[in-house]
Amino acid sequence: MAKGQLFIISGPSGVGKGTIVKRLLDETDVTFSVSMTTRKPRPGEVEGVSYYFVSDEEFDRTVEEEGFLEYAGNFGNRYGTPLAPILENLESGRDVLLDIDIQGALSVKKRYPKGVFIFILPPNMAELRKRITGRGTETEDSLNRRLGKALEEISYIDKYDYCIVNGELDEAVTRAKAILVAEHSRVTEDIYKLIDTYKEEV
Amino acid sequence: MAKGQLFIISGPSGVGKGTIVKRLLDETDVTFSVSMTTRKPRPGEVEGVSYYFVSDEEFDRTVEEEGFLEYAGNFGNRYGTPLAPILENLESGRDVLLDIDIQGALSVKKRYPKGVFIFILPPNMAELRKRITGRGTETEDSLNRRLGKALEEISYIDKYDYCIVNGELDEAVTRAKAILVAEHSRVTEDIYKLIDTYKEEV
Repeated sequence: MAKGQLFIISGPSGVGKGTIVKRLLDETDVTFSVSMTTRKPRPGEVEGVSYYFVSDEEFDRTVEEEGFLEYAGNFGNRYGTPLAPILENLESGRDVLLDIDIQGALSVKKRYPKGVFIFILPPNMAELRKRITGRGTETEDSLNRRLGKALEEISYIDKYDYCIVNGELDEAVTRAKAILVAEHSRVTEDIYKLIDTYKEEV
Repeated sequence: MAKGQLFIISGPSGVGKGTIVKRLLDETDVTFSVSMTTRKPRPGEVEGVSYYFVSDEEFDRTVEEEGFLEYAGNFGNRYGTPLAPILENLESGRDVLLDIDIQGALSVKKRYPKGVFIFILPPNMAELRKRITGRGTETEDSLNRRLGKALEEISYIDKYDYCIVNGELDEAVTRAKAILVAEHSRVTEDIYKLIDTYKEEV
């Protein structure tokens, strides 16, 4: 019961996942899992908060030491989820939130099947189109490509435990928080330890 | 997504389950499943609210018509959970809460495995002993019998999806409510219908 839980959150680009994640970090005790990357920091990005910015050599070393829960990108910039800080947090009873794409989530599921996998859905595709368009100057082509990619990603939803339709933000955040709370009441192996103490008492 | 969910709540006598159920009925939209019984109403009990009070013949008829989700008691007073009102409520999108003992819950699980099974635990056995004693004039013998029964019931916890330790009532109610909300975000077959509408849009 005391151990933390790993929550993995995914969703197509433009679905508003970042806003939900930010609200969860602000309004709950969940700890964010910071990724490691070989790309250069952009203005405003903070080492250890936005990312751990590392050299190609350090990234390689972490791969060799099996220090990633998952990693991706064989060409150009690479991104990975360092395992050690996640395990430390979980061991200390802190929940960890991992914001990751679908491919990454599938890798995490293999390594850590006990994780709780949450998918954020748009209320409909018209709304997703609107949100993507609202962001900037997408060409019709790149917009359609992104919507196609979103549909493909959504087809992996059966690998997830929960899905939240992000129609109304507050509603979506409330649901995400409820999942965080509810998952701590799951019947897991830990409960048997508690029950053993009951037996000793009687 | 639109259909209601069946929540089954169990726990040993004295654990404070009744108070949690009452809070859930007062503070959420969940509908209570009223049991059918052949025993006579006690003062203050209301037909259709406390129980459906029926004759032995009507109870037998309901059994024959397979009208119970589960029923128990071959001798003396019999109790059963009528299926029709539950299905009606679920079909209309209303959640249903079923307060039932462990044996009953196991029967329900066979007939309705999609149900969400919640077990209420005491924080420890000393506290359960105190709560049972606090109720009235238990002999040491009957107290020990009840605690033994509680332990036996608790051993079935692995059949349940969730367990809530009822140490502090508000905390327990908050957890129960979170489970009610979270379960509506589960990835189920219904989600595929929504996703089909996405595909049609693009």
